[in-house]
Amino acid sequence: MVQSLDIVSDLGEGFGSYQIADDDSLLKIVSSANIACGFHAGDPRTMASTVQKCILNNVAIGAHPSFPDRVGFGRRGMDLSALEVETDMLYQIGALSGFTKAFGGKLQHVTPHGKLGNFVVEDAKYANAVAEAIAKFDDSLIVVTLPGELAEAAKKKGLQIAYTIFADRAYNDDGSLVSRSHEGAVLHDSDTITKRVIRMVKEGKVTSITGQDIDVNGSSLLLHGDTAGSVQMAKEIKSALIANEIVIKNLAGSN
Amino acid sequence: MVQSLDIVSDLGEGFGSYQIADDDSLLKIVSSANIACGFHAGDPRTMASTVQKCILNNVAIGAHPSFPDRVGFGRRGMDLSALEVETDMLYQIGALSGFTKAFGGKLQHVTPHGKLGNFVVEDAKYANAVAEAIAKFDDSLIVVTLPGELAEAAKKKGLQIAYTIFADRAYNDDGSLVSRSHEGAVLHDSDTITKRVIRMVKEGKVTSITGQDIDVNGSSLLLHGDTAGSVQMAKEIKSALIANEIVIKNLAGSN
Amino acid sequence: MVQSLDIVSDLGEGFGSYQIADDDSLLKIVSSANIACGFHAGDPRTMASTVQKCILNNVAIGAHPSFPDRVGFGRRGMDLSALEVETDMLYQIGALSGFTKAFGGKLQHVTPHGKLGNFVVEDAKYANAVAEAIAKFDDSLIVVTLPGELAEAAKKKGLQIAYTIFADRAYNDDGSLVSRSHEGAVLHDSDTITKRVIRMVKEGKVTSITGQDIDVNGSSLLLHGDTAGSVQMAKEIKSALIANEIVIKNLAGSN
Amino acid sequence: MVQSLDIVSDLGEGFGSYQIADDDSLLKIVSSANIACGFHAGDPRTMASTVQKCILNNVAIGAHPSFPDRVGFGRRGMDLSALEVETDMLYQIGALSGFTKAFGGKLQHVTPHGKLGNFVVEDAKYANAVAEAIAKFDDSLIVVTLPGELAEAAKKKGLQIAYTIFADRAYNDDGSLVSRSHEGAVLHDSDTITKRVIRMVKEGKVTSITGQDIDVNGSSLLLHGDTAGSVQMAKEIKSALIANEIVIKNLAGSN
Repeated sequence: MVQSLDIVSDLGEGFGSYQIADDDSLLKIVSSANIACGFHAGDPRTMASTVQKCILNNVAIGAHPSFPDRVGFGRRGMDLSALEVETDMLYQIGALSGFTKAFGGKLQHVTPHGKLGNFVVEDAKYANAVAEAIAKFDDSLIVVTLPGELAEAAKKKGLQIAYTIFADRAYNDDGSLVSRSHEGAVLHDSDTITKRVIRMVKEGKVTSITGQDIDVNGSSLLLHGDTAGSVQMAKEIKSALIANEIVIKNLAGSN
Repeated sequence: MVQSLDIVSDLGEGFGSYQIADDDSLLKIVSSANIACGFHAGDPRTMASTVQKCILNNVAIGAHPSFPDRVGFGRRGMDLSALEVETDMLYQIGALSGFTKAFGGKLQHVTPHGKLGNFVVEDAKYANAVAEAIAKFDDSLIVVTLPGELAEAAKKKGLQIAYTIFADRAYNDDGSLVSRSHEGAVLHDSDTITKRVIRMVKEGKVTSITGQDIDVNGSSLLLHGDTAGSVQMAKEIKSALIANEIVIKNLAGSN
Repeated sequence: MVQSLDIVSDLGEGFGSYQIADDDSLLKIVSSANIACGFHAGDPRTMASTVQKCILNNVAIGAHPSFPDRVGFGRRGMDLSALEVETDMLYQIGALSGFTKAFGGKLQHVTPHGKLGNFVVEDAKYANAVAEAIAKFDDSLIVVTLPGELAEAAKKKGLQIAYTIFADRAYNDDGSLVSRSHEGAVLHDSDTITKRVIRMVKEGKVTSITGQDIDVNGSSLLLHGDTAGSVQMAKEIKSALIANEIVIKNLAGSN
Repeated sequence: MVQSLDIVSDLGEGFGSYQIADDDSLLKIVSSANIACGFHAGDPRTMASTVQKCILNNVAIGAHPSFPDRVGFGRRGMDLSALEVETDMLYQIGALSGFTKAFGGKLQHVTPHGKLGNFVVEDAKYANAVAEAIAKFDDSLIVVTLPGELAEAAKKKGLQIAYTIFADRAYNDDGSLVSRSHEGAVLHDSDTITKRVIRMVKEGKVTSITGQDIDVNGSSLLLHGDTAGSVQMAKEIKSALIANEIVIKNLAGSN
């Protein structure tokens, strides 16, 4: 049986004169993009250019909304009300849709960024607020997340979901990610990473940090491009996936 | 012959804990609203609430995008490229559409705020960039402005336009507004103002600051609500218009 | 024995075109001011004007630094590192000192605003970071706070402290404030409030929300001016204090 | 006769997670730094770290205030009032002084960044506002600028000034810089650049873009470090200066 996988990266995370990743190289690798919407990164020019490049490269477009914290890159916890989260989401998804509408593109998915992305997995308040915003804005949007509260909230609202899998992150026995502050949380060996990914896709299994085989299911593989080595790594993973007869295509299936 | 007029005010110009106008009173008077989109004023909660109130009060919704200058309330000139203006417009109109889409409303028009609103009348670069953004985003949106470069640029792109008329501002002989820095630029007498408005609508004429009768055509009457007296004045003008058999309805005609 | 008390209000909490309190009236009442530094409220013009008015009215100047959250008015919890808190403090206190230096004034005290002000009472990480910034910037500054972690951290660093007392807030048995979300947290009766304040100053006692007499010591009385009635209330409290032979003077003693 | 020269670079122009120049390499080359103050670039962590590194490397510290335009990196014209410019300056210089005071450093100079830096050369309103802020804040600060309005305004207020010279920029016959939009505005040949700098320092002469020898006097050489080659170029220029018996020391003379 042929399996498919969406390869996705965070794109458009520059701001004004600042760049943070090698977007042009990543655009040649990924099938989908999470595009920053101005709250943790991204500005109207970056968003316009990134949306246009995605359309040109046949890369599906996702919104990557965040807590309103540019100086902290959306990585700091904020104690917001459900209303604040929902309206911040609508603002950001709407803003990104300004560019997709203008340039003839289409939003495929939404995946919350950074600390908001962590909170929605564990905390029903944040999860419901995010799911509510997406359902209200456009219920054909796919919610991309780790298994957890957001996935459940999205399902209840009738939204499609897709689970994220990680190439270079260690997993706990319960399928959650090992926190970056723990040793061994991030994998570095190219060969190990590639094999893990192929097994995750082919068998739905991965070896956890304690050495156990656990189930892991996901159709969206998140790759990073913010370090020198990461783009090369992304290329190698993609090549290995293709060589193993895994079809790379976006969630909406157009690729 | 029965004439109609859209009465419009700037709404949602608070920010976070700050309020600047008596929006709730204005919502009972106007047929359309210019809603701030976060660059000079407005935040996601203010925008959500204002959009919902407009829908509830059957007030048509317009985007009121601005230069990115919250501390200056969008009233300070900025020397931006055409690309910067166009993408700032798309971001803001898109963000507002996040709320209209979510709450079941519809954007009727776009009218640039403050100094950007002044620049688009005189300067083709700004005018073209604004018209281009609107045409790309949704070419059914009505462009509301004074006669000038933006109106011409919008017409060339096939966009509908509506001209703004002012109740309490003096006009130069060429139909432009007398600058606020000149004496007599702002009218204060309720009776005078009301008679001027009715004549503008009925006859398409107004007496300029030099005493000449000039042509002035417009279907969108801008009223302000940021001072104690201004809401009362707005009520009186509306009553006088209705008493003179002028029908108050929004530009899209649904009111 | 004659007792003295510093009456303090939050001033300069407008932003750009926005106003939030009747600063000019408060300036005639208070002996010290907590001036917003741009992170939750305040902008360079507001800060300049507020500093100049304080100097003119012989009102002592305090810095009122906040979490970086203008849209939330500094009232939302943020999970920051000690380094982030310390450097945010230095930036804000330094910025305010730009105006005191320029206009011939002097900083008397520092008191953290909003949620940061709450966190420093309970959480040693935030408390130490704030105390560290103040000690490094100018160890003659007085730290104004409720009894708690910040007061202890400040004492350890050799800083002077002054405790805040509240006129219109109910106290728990342990001397902490009753949370605003609980019934009875805010007092409204002018007579009751005035008597409580006088007793707090004269006897160091207040009746807690459970009806017990508890110790409460403080030399800095915080009054608000953001509602119509609050300025009138502040005047009445001040008159009653003076009538009861309590001398109103700022912490540095110059008033 | 031995001549001296201050070598200065713009440092601390990152923001949050973003970096823009190789500050650590530049710190080994320069004798003074222009440090961003948060309006076009820089945040409290970046400012704290840059100030500490300057102190450690015996690099003199200057404030590099800007128009309030982070997304435009301070490179876009803004039409501000004199009061807006003066108070924006005080806020930024004050904020930077928060870090120098805390870490035991001292401000040596102020030099406006980007478009504000251009405007103060030509426009008396901006020049006077900047000079006024510096004179009010600390009249021992040195004003670093091109010859023009700011230098004249600063002199009138009794401030010390130092002129900036550029290694890699072409000069017009009147001593102003050739605009970047003109061909030949930026020089690239290492040998040519080095020889020009040495001649500027030794003889006070440079060949203008029309081929004429013109006078150019300046004690502050601005070098950039935001491209791969620019750090290497800066090293070569410094070596050549030293080899030609030009002493590198900061304006305050401590280096």
